[in-house]
Amino acid sequence: MNNLLVVGTVALDDIETPFGKVDSVLGGAGAYAALAASYFADPALVSIIGRDMPKKELARLSKRKISLDGLEYGEKSFHWSGYYEFDMNAAKTRKTELNVLAEFNPKLSPQQKKSRFLLLANCDPSVQLQVIKQMDGKPFIAVDTMNYWIETKKEELLKVIRKANLVVMNEGEARLLFGTPNLIKAGRELLALGPKYAIIKKGEHGALLFSEHNYFSAAGYPLESLKDPTGAGDSFLGGLMGYLVKQLDSQTAKQSVSEEQMRKAVVYGSVIASFCAEEFGTGYIDSIKISDIHERYGAIQKICQF
Amino acid sequence: MNNLLVVGTVALDDIETPFGKVDSVLGGAGAYAALAASYFADPALVSIIGRDMPKKELARLSKRKISLDGLEYGEKSFHWSGYYEFDMNAAKTRKTELNVLAEFNPKLSPQQKKSRFLLLANCDPSVQLQVIKQMDGKPFIAVDTMNYWIETKKEELLKVIRKANLVVMNEGEARLLFGTPNLIKAGRELLALGPKYAIIKKGEHGALLFSEHNYFSAAGYPLESLKDPTGAGDSFLGGLMGYLVKQLDSQTAKQSVSEEQMRKAVVYGSVIASFCAEEFGTGYIDSIKISDIHERYGAIQKICQF
Repeated sequence: MNNLLVVGTVALDDIETPFGKVDSVLGGAGAYAALAASYFADPALVSIIGRDMPKKELARLSKRKISLDGLEYGEKSFHWSGYYEFDMNAAKTRKTELNVLAEFNPKLSPQQKKSRFLLLANCDPSVQLQVIKQMDGKPFIAVDTMNYWIETKKEELLKVIRKANLVVMNEGEARLLFGTPNLIKAGRELLALGPKYAIIKKGEHGALLFSEHNYFSAAGYPLESLKDPTGAGDSFLGGLMGYLVKQLDSQTAKQSVSEEQMRKAVVYGSVIASFCAEEFGTGYIDSIKISDIHERYGAIQKICQF
Repeated sequence: MNNLLVVGTVALDDIETPFGKVDSVLGGAGAYAALAASYFADPALVSIIGRDMPKKELARLSKRKISLDGLEYGEKSFHWSGYYEFDMNAAKTRKTELNVLAEFNPKLSPQQKKSRFLLLANCDPSVQLQVIKQMDGKPFIAVDTMNYWIETKKEELLKVIRKANLVVMNEGEARLLFGTPNLIKAGRELLALGPKYAIIKKGEHGALLFSEHNYFSAAGYPLESLKDPTGAGDSFLGGLMGYLVKQLDSQTAKQSVSEEQMRKAVVYGSVIASFCAEEFGTGYIDSIKISDIHERYGAIQKICQF
């Protein structure tokens, strides 16, 4: 029985970094988020792919027991080609072919509509809104996005954020959305839109969690070998939501997410993101040992103590 | 009796940020570091200034009981004019007039030579080396620098670092010095040069402390109102060293700095830096309440807990 609904892209990625190059490997925000969540929860993935998606790549998802019943099929997969320069801070896009993504129009099954946890990975906010409208009851909704949507569909994106319980974006996106260089102000502005929690991801510098009366600063895991940051942000949110689902799903009564649970979830998200960035594409996060995850969590506890 | 020797520039600064503009105010790495240290220790400042330095500006130092016996006088003060753009990440220089700084050639008094703690604020590494050579015994030496010296006097700078117990630089400088985007690698490379501790300052993202077997990530204080980052890095090191001196100076036997003490010192440094950035120039760090310092230290403890 799946306990987390993940909606987002599944792509073929061509990635080049100073440490190497891979072509046509599994990518997409939905794929990364579902893989990351699978260490704690049983995700079902809703997405659209093409018949050109190699079985070997798709098997990365199914071997993690992610339900693929919600995959639609079209002709050619969404395909992204990008590269990173020396500092690896921001991906530069060489080419984006939307292909099947242009027709992505998810229709949820009755069971999917009942999911208590919904992870809307980075995707067109119109699609995100359409998914939210189909949900029964009041699921816990987490939303991620990217600058492209802030620049081209800001109003739709704000509508999505207003319906979310948790909104996540990176520092550049938060600054862009609110026209302020100050992340503390941006975090407060995100909360003012309605979500109970807002997170600003800062890559290697960790993440900031904002809630009504509190503020949490999570350190990033100190990675000496970072090969490819693609998908790290998506893995962060996937790991975080997976952890929350694991804490709350066993409760029969609906329970709200506590600040303490959310802080721990942020750290677990950072841990999974750190594994993601250590290898190209999804090359590592389809096969992390659970003991390694807990070990890094413990390491982050130690590096923050004073 | 002074227990911390601070050597570094005392300047007149013209500063413009999106939040305002000040002209000919007290500045310089030595001034900021000494002011910051004065909340915990009794610093003596060794520097050179011109007769154009307004008494009112110099009084900011003396009212904090910083010994100015080590000030030399020339004709015109070192004068820096700079500005910050929207994101306030990096200062842009409009004009640098070295003036008296071109003749800075510090001669320590017998008492200064005996200081057990030496803070070498950002300055020409040849001057820093010259000061180290004059010291008696084996003081605890902390060194800061800037990209200009990495680009123009790298060999001298490396000699200084090899003689230091603690080396501090910001993330851009660390990347530049070792030609790596990875801060964890850069921190390890700094330690490999000899210092027991290395710190990489990350501005609003806090700071990383490296030691032989450990790693500490300190969160930045969440400032909603940042008006002028000038001197924040110098104040960080000043606050840090002041705190260490306070812990160790009372011991009659020479004691080495423990990891635990160093972690706390890093957080106190961050706290003082946060006050510095809240107001233009030294407009705030000459008059912080000690209770406010401890309050922010407590706040940082809370925002890191999980």
